[in-house]
Amino acid sequence: MNSEHTVKSFDSELAQLTDTLLQMGRLTEQQLSTAIEALSLRSSETAEQVIREDQQIDQLKDQVTEQVLNLIALRQPVAADLRLIVSALTMATDFERIGDHAASAAKRSLKMLDAGAAPPLETFLRLASIVLNRLHNIVTAFTNLDSALAMDVWRRDSEVDTVHTSLYREMLTYMMEDPRKITACTHLLFAAKSLERIGDHATNIAELVCFLKDGRRPRGQRPRAPDETIATEPSGSTG
Amino acid sequence: MNSEHTVKSFDSELAQLTDTLLQMGRLTEQQLSTAIEALSLRSSETAEQVIREDQQIDQLKDQVTEQVLNLIALRQPVAADLRLIVSALTMATDFERIGDHAASAAKRSLKMLDAGAAPPLETFLRLASIVLNRLHNIVTAFTNLDSALAMDVWRRDSEVDTVHTSLYREMLTYMMEDPRKITACTHLLFAAKSLERIGDHATNIAELVCFLKDGRRPRGQRPRAPDETIATEPSGSTG
Repeated sequence: MNSEHTVKSFDSELAQLTDTLLQMGRLTEQQLSTAIEALSLRSSETAEQVIREDQQIDQLKDQVTEQVLNLIALRQPVAADLRLIVSALTMATDFERIGDHAASAAKRSLKMLDAGAAPPLETFLRLASIVLNRLHNIVTAFTNLDSALAMDVWRRDSEVDTVHTSLYREMLTYMMEDPRKITACTHLLFAAKSLERIGDHATNIAELVCFLKDGRRPRGQRPRAPDETIATEPSGSTG
Repeated sequence: MNSEHTVKSFDSELAQLTDTLLQMGRLTEQQLSTAIEALSLRSSETAEQVIREDQQIDQLKDQVTEQVLNLIALRQPVAADLRLIVSALTMATDFERIGDHAASAAKRSLKMLDAGAAPPLETFLRLASIVLNRLHNIVTAFTNLDSALAMDVWRRDSEVDTVHTSLYREMLTYMMEDPRKITACTHLLFAAKSLERIGDHATNIAELVCFLKDGRRPRGQRPRAPDETIATEPSGSTG
């Protein structure tokens, strides 16, 4: 980073990297929104579209990896710059997993359509709308490097867990009342688990946005719902 | 990498990084084995031990990140060396997720104990033993940089899917026959999903071992069971 020219190239390469991450963010948001639409409209065509388009997100992830490797090799960044560039890899992994979970939810909706005797979807759609809103906010927070908005996403993690737990109990009731609904309810529970995991990844990204903006991650334990009946999967640390 | 001294330091730092990854591998194997024991012995104490010790794996993941950042900053590796070092981050993420899933399975076994009226565990334990064996083999393959063994793990991914699908069908039958088993069966299905995901992460690591040994990843699509009734979660690409 000796000449002004070098600094400018470095900045423009960083901007490209950020741009690829933003593309990933917008695409995952769109994929989740379409997956939810597939479920609520019971449209297998829409679900298949989500499954098909997941590979676009995977390709963007590969692009991020290449851009990071090139940046490191050519610019040999150290300290804060290096940490920032490597955290792009972590964020890309979170977006990629969100895409995977959106595709999983779409696959589950296909299975649910096949299974017939579906349960009411109200609580599921409420969960879906909370998670989609979290994802939208975190993409916005990253776009504007808005750490206040990111902290807001981070703090509200427990809302997802609470609705997820209600949904679980509701589904158990439907299954017990009517065994013909067991198959469809099981698929819906797995789709809900995917949504909950998307919420966890949004929380990971919130931590990264705070780190990018303020140089440190939020302190303390993530807020969790007091009764975590089924939110048993530990949140992946973004390390 | 100008002097012999520098090369030696670089090699010893690489050896340290590999050593941390191996510690992660051995610990995840031990955690999965203990989680399975907790389920088969219906021991809540053993399950709690797995949940408690998961943070050790998270700490090792953080160590890998630090070692990678230091190696890049101090040695400024390029080309193949850089790619190799960055792939250590990917492998650490896979091991960390395996640890998370082992802890999830342990949490589910606690819930299953609470739920009472448990279903028979034979098929679940068969699935668990296949997954544990895959994890053991991939840790061995990484220890000895044995790409033939890694390819063997990679090719057998479909076995896990097949048993997972049988288990799913079996649990549906139990739930339909006896509604009192619904809660326990649901927890077992989620524990099984965690095992299946561990299988996917083992496959990711198999690809990385082949890359480390031979400089390229296995070609073509991963082998998948022909009837993927429930293995609906896309494998996370290691990109």
